Amino acid sequence: MITLRSYLQGRWQAGTGSPATLVDPTTEEPIATTSTAGLDLAAALEHARTVGGPALRAMTFAERGAMIKRMSKVLYEVRDALIDVSIQNGGTTRSDAKFDIDGATGTLAYYASLGQKLGEARLLVEGTGEQLTRSPRFWGVHVKTPRRGVAVHVNAFNFPAWGLAEKAAVALLAGVPVVSKPATSTALLAFRVMERLVEAADLPDGALQLVCGEPGNLLDTLGPQDVLAFTGAGSTGAHLRALQAVVARSVRINIEADSLNSAVLGPDAEPGSDTYMMLLRDTVREMTQKTGQKCTATRRVFVPRAHLERVQEDLREQLASIKVGDPALEEVRMGPLASAQQLAAVRAGIDLLEQSGARIVHGSRGKVEPFGVPAGKGYFVSPVLLRADDPHAARAVHEHEVFGPVATLMPYEDVADAARLVALGEGGLVTSVYTDDRAALEALVLGLAPWSGRILCGSSKIADQAIAPGLVLPSCVHGGPGRAGGGEELGGERGLDFYMQRTAMQGDRALLARALGLTLEPPAEA
Amino acid sequence: MITLRSYLQGRWQAGTGSPATLVDPTTEEPIATTSTAGLDLAAALEHARTVGGPALRAMTFAERGAMIKRMSKVLYEVRDALIDVSIQNGGTTRSDAKFDIDGATGTLAYYASLGQKLGEARLLVEGTGEQLTRSPRFWGVHVKTPRRGVAVHVNAFNFPAWGLAEKAAVALLAGVPVVSKPATSTALLAFRVMERLVEAADLPDGALQLVCGEPGNLLDTLGPQDVLAFTGAGSTGAHLRALQAVVARSVRINIEADSLNSAVLGPDAEPGSDTYMMLLRDTVREMTQKTGQKCTATRRVFVPRAHLERVQEDLREQLASIKVGDPALEEVRMGPLASAQQLAAVRAGIDLLEQSGARIVHGSRGKVEPFGVPAGKGYFVSPVLLRADDPHAARAVHEHEVFGPVATLMPYEDVADAARLVALGEGGLVTSVYTDDRAALEALVLGLAPWSGRILCGSSKIADQAIAPGLVLPSCVHGGPGRAGGGEELGGERGLDFYMQRTAMQGDRALLARALGLTLEPPAEA
Repeated sequence: MITLRSYLQGRWQAGTGSPATLVDPTTEEPIATTSTAGLDLAAALEHARTVGGPALRAMTFAERGAMIKRMSKVLYEVRDALIDVSIQNGGTTRSDAKFDIDGATGTLAYYASLGQKLGEARLLVEGTGEQLTRSPRFWGVHVKTPRRGVAVHVNAFNFPAWGLAEKAAVALLAGVPVVSKPATSTALLAFRVMERLVEAADLPDGALQLVCGEPGNLLDTLGPQDVLAFTGAGSTGAHLRALQAVVARSVRINIEADSLNSAVLGPDAEPGSDTYMMLLRDTVREMTQKTGQKCTATRRVFVPRAHLERVQEDLREQLASIKVGDPALEEVRMGPLASAQQLAAVRAGIDLLEQSGARIVHGSRGKVEPFGVPAGKGYFVSPVLLRADDPHAARAVHEHEVFGPVATLMPYEDVADAARLVALGEGGLVTSVYTDDRAALEALVLGLAPWSGRILCGSSKIADQAIAPGLVLPSCVHGGPGRAGGGEELGGERGLDFYMQRTAMQGDRALLARALGLTLEPPAEA
Repeated sequence: MITLRSYLQGRWQAGTGSPATLVDPTTEEPIATTSTAGLDLAAALEHARTVGGPALRAMTFAERGAMIKRMSKVLYEVRDALIDVSIQNGGTTRSDAKFDIDGATGTLAYYASLGQKLGEARLLVEGTGEQLTRSPRFWGVHVKTPRRGVAVHVNAFNFPAWGLAEKAAVALLAGVPVVSKPATSTALLAFRVMERLVEAADLPDGALQLVCGEPGNLLDTLGPQDVLAFTGAGSTGAHLRALQAVVARSVRINIEADSLNSAVLGPDAEPGSDTYMMLLRDTVREMTQKTGQKCTATRRVFVPRAHLERVQEDLREQLASIKVGDPALEEVRMGPLASAQQLAAVRAGIDLLEQSGARIVHGSRGKVEPFGVPAGKGYFVSPVLLRADDPHAARAVHEHEVFGPVATLMPYEDVADAARLVALGEGGLVTSVYTDDRAALEALVLGLAPWSGRILCGSSKIADQAIAPGLVLPSCVHGGPGRAGGGEELGGERGLDFYMQRTAMQGDRALLARALGLTLEPPAEA
């Protein structure tokens, strides 16, 4: 039994009081405890602001990039050990664990490269500016400088490694120190990641701190230069957005929350075609990878009514081959849900979808017999495919995210109807459309874009070359409008904006250029 | 006595119930009444979403630009009449009135030109995208499409024309319909502006609606594709940010609130020099223009301790020449505050500054004898210069914005101290620094940028060519961190982002290019 500690103000600290217990979701055995009782989290924030921030701001982008590269490298060196931790505390298969851990090191490596590219600068400049009045001397240019506060990252249970790393990579590259709080139930992996970073990554004091356990007063003292980034349930996101400190002090907040991600089979995609097969493959992967516990997992599948039965049968066939059980075993394709709480929520969610007019056509809400697991143990559920024949009436299907291996298949009448149905989700992280028809793609994409943070367009020519819709690339924005939280993360350099203040500089062009070390020349043709 | 009406769902509608009364702040005579009681504001929002939005989205940027150009043109045609309304309902001098009204037509004209430049497109594309996997076919590109909701604009009393126009110009160019609510006390000018636009600008039905009076249920039905932009008091901003609809449905919100804008005289600027004189001129203008009722007005003036007395005497001399009185008279330089409420707030604010350790060195909180005004009438106050010799102790000076012709002069010890003092304001819209010294400018600008939405750098070579710090140019972002609300408006094309959803598109490069009508070519050197 391990006692997790928090890494605050440059040292590992254990809380007092009655701790929370982390379990192995395959066996339900307790594996660790953690508590933040008695820890001074406000002091940790101030440590970040006064020690970590100045240290990071003294570094160039290239130097911060080199630091982030070290983070990636030292984590990669212990990859196998981290995978084992993920399997044990997360109930992930080895493949699922890699998705999280390689996602972490890959995203760090990406931002390390971006730091290299941004080079010796300490601020970002938008273009070369422009003449503001009739005088060619009086110039305007927008620059971005690191905020002087701390970035508090509150992460979800499903990606303990990637969640910590992808947020930290962007903040640290921007020059803003981080206090990261993993979800308690799967915090063991984040704790191991942090142990390794403290041991081997040579981070400046105060650049990165970790809170394992309850948030306590972590969010009470946020101020006008601080930012808060949250990934998790929409209800928690709404609570955070209304916090007194956030509301009264203009704390910047980014939320990545619930999302009823959709897959849409184009009207032209004939059963058996490469494009059709791509939808099947993606849907099964998105339903079952990480036991459906991904914010980008597909929850709704819309197909032309004529193909409804065929898609249902094809999905059932593929889902039937998914072996559920002990995720440490090689033949197992899907492990348990991460906690008893998640299992209860998934079962309740399936009930809600059924009450709303969907019916189960594959799997069940009840017990499964997982492979290689002691009888009656573990938070297992089977993949569940539902079907709703009247999708406009089945409101819960569009409004309630069941965070497990659960999706609902629905028919649409025409492309405009498909767009309307997707929009009933009120904003999502990713929508995937599968079509080779230019006109259908145009209509779908323009109809869906305002409701989607990302659209993956599957088609025959890239059927074997595309990423899965659930994969978040560091170069593309991650986030979505409305129910998905209205935020944006990553997106390459775009992600830095959240951590920086954009300022319009106005003045004597030559003097500004000298003082800021910028090239502020009029464009050649002017 | 005029009865203002609201323009909702394509027609002018008067509210019932007991109306609010608008007065002439010079004479205290009632001039208009208005009410929104009984009006269906939720229906107005839905009208915007279902009628205005589709009409705007069907137009190209160039077509929207042409529409915005008409708005500018038809308002310019009635400029003189609008100036008279501003003098009457706003208590503005003719020059102040032009600042508001020409600001409105100028900002509209700027966004009309931008629409022309953006051309025949209906969506914005960031660059030409990038290869996402090893396959050169699988491409990623970020596009921006108009949100499918309504933009609700809640404006401040001080710029009834510019506030309406600058927000509407950006939203309409982005393709998002607007419901604009001016502050009630000065709504007569916004009403006249809207009358003219309805009469002559040929706007699509539902593109622009106006609410004159109480907001009623205007904000209760905001949804996930809607946006809310507010300019006004920080306390109201905090209230709006915590609204249930905003918190629970990820309504995008932009706030431009209180700001203790600073002017900093560089350590090198000798009394009498061009740079020094620029600070004097700007400070007097910012204190008195629009009777100090500008969110960008200078509230704090920091000078090297050695020059404190001299700056005080020079400012006093210039302020003494400001004639206060009936703003319709040509010789009057400063009119009344806009309302009895503002007068009470300014007087209470001066008291607060005095209690905090500042003392008045010019003007007084009490009665003035305004020129050309019936005895005892009008909401007049004199310009008031305070001085705080211990600026770190005088907290209210940095925290309480007195929204009138009031500023506080303070000494600083060195450049780092000046930056710390500015930062005590916890975020502002604009900071102006006056120096010809490269090193001082670098230290000030880098220290102040995270706390400032804009920095005007005054120096000898542009002393006669610079804009005043209080002038908001449409090409530069307007907004500031922390106390200033944490938002951004304008900034040329940057301003459109608030009204659009950014979506990462991933797919077959050639197919995406065809479907979206984009050029998605790899860069030439690739």
